[in-house]
Amino acid sequence: MTTSPPPASGGPVSDELLKDLAAASRILVAQGVVDGFGHVSLRHPNAPDRFLMSRSLAPALVTPEDILEYDLEGQACNANGRSSFLERFIHSEIYKARPDIHSVVHSHSPSVIPFGLVRLKMQAMFHNAAFLAEGVPVFDIREKFGATDMLVGNGAKGTALAEVMGAKDVVLMRAHGSVACAASLPMAVFRAVYTEVNARVQHWTQALAQGDAVQGLDVDEGRLADEVNKTTGMRAWDLWRAQIRAQVNW
Amino acid sequence: MTTSPPPASGGPVSDELLKDLAAASRILVAQGVVDGFGHVSLRHPNAPDRFLMSRSLAPALVTPEDILEYDLEGQACNANGRSSFLERFIHSEIYKARPDIHSVVHSHSPSVIPFGLVRLKMQAMFHNAAFLAEGVPVFDIREKFGATDMLVGNGAKGTALAEVMGAKDVVLMRAHGSVACAASLPMAVFRAVYTEVNARVQHWTQALAQGDAVQGLDVDEGRLADEVNKTTGMRAWDLWRAQIRAQVNW
Amino acid sequence: MTTSPPPASGGPVSDELLKDLAAASRILVAQGVVDGFGHVSLRHPNAPDRFLMSRSLAPALVTPEDILEYDLEGQACNANGRSSFLERFIHSEIYKARPDIHSVVHSHSPSVIPFGLVRLKMQAMFHNAAFLAEGVPVFDIREKFGATDMLVGNGAKGTALAEVMGAKDVVLMRAHGSVACAASLPMAVFRAVYTEVNARVQHWTQALAQGDAVQGLDVDEGRLADEVNKTTGMRAWDLWRAQIRAQVNW
Amino acid sequence: MTTSPPPASGGPVSDELLKDLAAASRILVAQGVVDGFGHVSLRHPNAPDRFLMSRSLAPALVTPEDILEYDLEGQACNANGRSSFLERFIHSEIYKARPDIHSVVHSHSPSVIPFGLVRLKMQAMFHNAAFLAEGVPVFDIREKFGATDMLVGNGAKGTALAEVMGAKDVVLMRAHGSVACAASLPMAVFRAVYTEVNARVQHWTQALAQGDAVQGLDVDEGRLADEVNKTTGMRAWDLWRAQIRAQVNW
Repeated sequence: MTTSPPPASGGPVSDELLKDLAAASRILVAQGVVDGFGHVSLRHPNAPDRFLMSRSLAPALVTPEDILEYDLEGQACNANGRSSFLERFIHSEIYKARPDIHSVVHSHSPSVIPFGLVRLKMQAMFHNAAFLAEGVPVFDIREKFGATDMLVGNGAKGTALAEVMGAKDVVLMRAHGSVACAASLPMAVFRAVYTEVNARVQHWTQALAQGDAVQGLDVDEGRLADEVNKTTGMRAWDLWRAQIRAQVNW
Repeated sequence: MTTSPPPASGGPVSDELLKDLAAASRILVAQGVVDGFGHVSLRHPNAPDRFLMSRSLAPALVTPEDILEYDLEGQACNANGRSSFLERFIHSEIYKARPDIHSVVHSHSPSVIPFGLVRLKMQAMFHNAAFLAEGVPVFDIREKFGATDMLVGNGAKGTALAEVMGAKDVVLMRAHGSVACAASLPMAVFRAVYTEVNARVQHWTQALAQGDAVQGLDVDEGRLADEVNKTTGMRAWDLWRAQIRAQVNW
Repeated sequence: MTTSPPPASGGPVSDELLKDLAAASRILVAQGVVDGFGHVSLRHPNAPDRFLMSRSLAPALVTPEDILEYDLEGQACNANGRSSFLERFIHSEIYKARPDIHSVVHSHSPSVIPFGLVRLKMQAMFHNAAFLAEGVPVFDIREKFGATDMLVGNGAKGTALAEVMGAKDVVLMRAHGSVACAASLPMAVFRAVYTEVNARVQHWTQALAQGDAVQGLDVDEGRLADEVNKTTGMRAWDLWRAQIRAQVNW
Repeated sequence: MTTSPPPASGGPVSDELLKDLAAASRILVAQGVVDGFGHVSLRHPNAPDRFLMSRSLAPALVTPEDILEYDLEGQACNANGRSSFLERFIHSEIYKARPDIHSVVHSHSPSVIPFGLVRLKMQAMFHNAAFLAEGVPVFDIREKFGATDMLVGNGAKGTALAEVMGAKDVVLMRAHGSVACAASLPMAVFRAVYTEVNARVQHWTQALAQGDAVQGLDVDEGRLADEVNKTTGMRAWDLWRAQIRAQVNW
């Protein structure tokens, strides 16, 4: 409990943007990426050292009114007594380390967790998951911090996570979950969804392969296919956004 | 059929508590933990030698009016001709053996059953399932009782189950199902749900591991993470409770 | 196309029974046992040489008005131009061979099909599937009939299927599906549902077992547990029946 | 951007046909074959060198008004500024190469993708998937075109795909998806659905088989069973079509 004043806001953002961010939270529920836990954030469109993220709340319940603004130390600008997610440092430290990233999704999507617990690596099984072709690192919080509650609950842990992620866009967290990032909200959601779908596909593929190599996307194919996804991926976002709009009227 | 009078009640309980217990039953359906079978109970808040549990009924149909009160011998205080679950002794004997436990869920959740039939042990695959890191014993009713109908249908069988569970919070039952316990109703439901989710995750993890060790939570991580879950787990309960309230208006 | 008159009816049956049989068809859809294909029948309550079954129609669309009556040669008593399922001989020949059976379900439920294609046998993984503990034979139509369209489309093929089933209550059909039988409609539906659930559980169990024996129900446990299921199984039927009633108002 | 005029139309088609094609798109969503991506087309009933297909749009959103007409070079006759799917050349080149085919479905249905990434071949696991018994080739775009964005985005790539498909009705695309074809719209949809169902069944079958041969349909059985499916398959189409009609009123 600090008595220092909250950080200044980066300035007002449009209602449309707050609605999209709240809708993203519900899209991730509808697509099976998050359950009662997980969160999605968006860098402030006009202030790169601020980001927007729901107060601590189950993703299915988030409304535009629940979105708070944070600085890159994870301090809320406008909490007014509302509590914050313990793991907002995942977001703040990635925004600090990676100026190209404007949106971050953290989830415990169930098909992805196994790839954080074994030696076999996640690969891109099909073009929609092309962003995985560059490789998917695993962050083991135990290496630097010993036995913990597994949460990225402060800046130092967020920094360590961002370091393991490096220049990639997805990082797995051992015995916990994963993070998917992108230059825009729709693409971060797209990547979180297709990381989960790809994991399901890879489970079955590895079972069929019986130890043989698997002919997923190579690095060149991944780079080329990801360029297309950045455009065509909006088709998925537009569909998902419309489905949420039909439920909540915003 | 005994003609002795039913045991005395431990006293009235609030409507809110009866509604929460009935809602818990429906939450377990919604989360895929129970189907037409399974039950959840709550120790009486003012009388530790009494507990509350639905009459024999499919979990999806339970209402607050269906909740009966039992003593720790599994005798209903207020049956009035309503029939009881054959396996209420799972609950009565665990309450007898474990004063720290205030809520018990019994289910046949399908992903969990396999871990009661093989040598490989259930482990905690991620922080939400931290309560499994202390180890998950398997109760084989055949060891003490020979060939049976597999049901924990009397006090002696309930006692044997509670003995195998010991100081743990989850116990598997060979060729039958499992039991998840906690100090509160929300946490027992949370543990029943994440025992099932963890089982699904572990199936895929073992398949990927191809016999190698799996890097789940160790005992220290499990202890630390479970402390956090006892607080943050309410976020899941609040969501699930709201979803049931929207359906049934209580 | 024969010009002989249709067989005589075994007499009228109650509306309630026709509704239950039509509801059974929809229950099997809701439980994932049948899709656009599959059928359930009931022996005529007063005429053991007649049975009741929907005209050829997707199970989700069956209403009480679609139920036809057949003799044990698979001839419809009251078709009035309505077409019959090609595989009604599965039903007619089982009723002929097994006076104790009063209801039959045929499905292609997807988790069960694999057990008809490999050497490993289906076993009872938990007490709800106790009826499988006596063993599950596989009918390979190719053995007696060579290359066919795989359908049990005449009496001879139905007879051969019933012979392979023998005194058991479930039989798999290679590269096709399975049949679940019982002394009553609710129990046949119960067995069809839990044959599918058991298959899912066994898939995961075999994967974990890595070639070791699996500790499912033994024959004695199966016999004892099945006795209980015949009573408690009505709890599932009552739930499923109520769910259909809420949709169709009959 | 060409300034040449669009190709001439093959003539008007009935509203009923446009509704069926739009409904097919939504059926594929409902059956889990397509998500935000994928498309279904129909050869023009009166002009074999034209085909009908939605403008670029998520399949769940397609209405009869979104259907465009194309020539066999993938040029739209009536785009009026509406954008086309990048991969319409899958359809145009298959229609060019195979006069017997009148409907094509392209999807990334998730259970099918693994069979495009490993050596083990897809087989027909049960009679509904009889059309797979003739064998399922895999198109690897890398063989002829090197590293690409994985899309069949021009006529040359479509031609190469159609060549690998040859006289078969289903072809897998490495690290991408698959194509299912038939002589009619209902059968193409049926085959797309049962290719996915068959893949799920085969995954479990291969796991049980532990390297042994799997007793799926042989070529003769496949041929005989497929004949029946061409008739009985309409039962599934009629059900699926009715379910969409109930949602959209067309």
